[in-house]
Amino acid sequence: MSAFYAERMTVIGVGLIGGSLALALKKAGFVGEVIGCGRGKPNLEAALKLGIIDRYERDPQKAVEGADIVFLATPVCTLASMVAEIAPALKPGAILTDGGSVKGEVLREINPAVPEGVHFVAGHPIAGTENSGAEAAFATLYQGKRCILTPDSQTDVRALEAVTAMWQAAGSEVVCMPAEKHDRVLAAISHLPHMVAYSLVNAVGSYDHYEENILEYSAGGFRDFTRIASSDPTMWRDIALTNQSALLEMMEQFETFFAELKEDVRQGNVDRLFEFFVRSKQLRDDIL
Amino acid sequence: MSAFYAERMTVIGVGLIGGSLALALKKAGFVGEVIGCGRGKPNLEAALKLGIIDRYERDPQKAVEGADIVFLATPVCTLASMVAEIAPALKPGAILTDGGSVKGEVLREINPAVPEGVHFVAGHPIAGTENSGAEAAFATLYQGKRCILTPDSQTDVRALEAVTAMWQAAGSEVVCMPAEKHDRVLAAISHLPHMVAYSLVNAVGSYDHYEENILEYSAGGFRDFTRIASSDPTMWRDIALTNQSALLEMMEQFETFFAELKEDVRQGNVDRLFEFFVRSKQLRDDIL
Repeated sequence: MSAFYAERMTVIGVGLIGGSLALALKKAGFVGEVIGCGRGKPNLEAALKLGIIDRYERDPQKAVEGADIVFLATPVCTLASMVAEIAPALKPGAILTDGGSVKGEVLREINPAVPEGVHFVAGHPIAGTENSGAEAAFATLYQGKRCILTPDSQTDVRALEAVTAMWQAAGSEVVCMPAEKHDRVLAAISHLPHMVAYSLVNAVGSYDHYEENILEYSAGGFRDFTRIASSDPTMWRDIALTNQSALLEMMEQFETFFAELKEDVRQGNVDRLFEFFVRSKQLRDDIL
Repeated sequence: MSAFYAERMTVIGVGLIGGSLALALKKAGFVGEVIGCGRGKPNLEAALKLGIIDRYERDPQKAVEGADIVFLATPVCTLASMVAEIAPALKPGAILTDGGSVKGEVLREINPAVPEGVHFVAGHPIAGTENSGAEAAFATLYQGKRCILTPDSQTDVRALEAVTAMWQAAGSEVVCMPAEKHDRVLAAISHLPHMVAYSLVNAVGSYDHYEENILEYSAGGFRDFTRIASSDPTMWRDIALTNQSALLEMMEQFETFFAELKEDVRQGNVDRLFEFFVRSKQLRDDIL
């Protein structure tokens, strides 16, 4: 459906996010050669064997040489320094884009590092699993998922079209919104749930220290939480640090509701408890 | 493997829990006739059509006539009054057991209502889905799942053996523990997670009122929460009311951890955030 085609694409950070995009774009015929780059050689070797990349370079500057599109899929805290590092080696007219989970604060650091003549488009695919590394990548990860792009008044229109076409080729529905709105939406639907799951697993796990083997009994509900809470600690530390203000706002919103519920449990408020649970069920039915 | 066989079994409350047990026991050849009872006629008709029960009676006293085993699968708040209602009709030597999610406070109400010569064994299968009603029942629900029995010094040993054999026939692993420990374990691994999920969905859903369509973007993590938070409101209201003290203790435990995490986010404590997330991942790896 698109007229876009990238002769050469570089993926920096060939894990679940970067690797899956490479696989999807190859399958869709959107890219020619894919060059991988990243800190771990064993991971790059695995990516090569799995056909995710065609070759790799350990040096980021070498990796981006001649690339039409460079996709950054390294942890959000490393993005700005990575852009600064590859800046001198990017070819004029190259499109630079990312998959970072936080936008506002991160973009304030990235934007000044983007060299003249290179077009940066900030993005974030709303997809993932709790697994990481090249071996976790698969071509259909983005099928039917949303990808949020956060262009601003400086964003090149042609580059925005190309990145939109790229995500569409990977099977995603592309949505544009301001970076600040992105960060509030993600704080609500992703970052807060992770903080809640991490706290829950730690709270129950600690309780287990004096009440033996509680975790042995863990049933359905608890297992769902532990799955979320086993996501990559480095990535979540970085998200908590960079999306601090939106996340704190949502954490406080949650605390208010949880405290209200606790008070109703304490007082045995039959009707209020029922209403609280019904409201939640209705909210769910509305989105399904 | 067991020498136990129930000529006639009555299931009061033919939903996911009661219906699945009936199906499993029929398949295992543990029961002859299964009689259903419950408030909703359409549900009982459905159970009949699905082969879950062989016949039904609307009147609980009629339903338990001549039954060797009576399984109570109605909401926890109704158990004691149901026992009082059927008490005069239970045959001498009948075994009465339940599947209620809360034990301590509920048993203090049930025990005095059990008539002389009838053997009550309190139980709770740790299994379920977010669906309810006879149509949600399936024979393998209990396969490989734990079932907790909470006998006390008054419990008849033969009856305990029979109920153990019943759950084993349904595919469960049977574990015995005091009622108070059961309530603490369940508060931790099931009741608290549900309170957390209900609060989260309500908090995010309310936030959505002024930030349009946030729920539209809900990705993996949030969807897992909404699944848990769509469980039956009546059941969860009753659990919150009857397991109040253990639940409040766990809610406070959770609040402490969540507040600690929030403080680390506010202060940008890089190392403490990382440790918090790593600890959670390790706890999960320990139970898998």
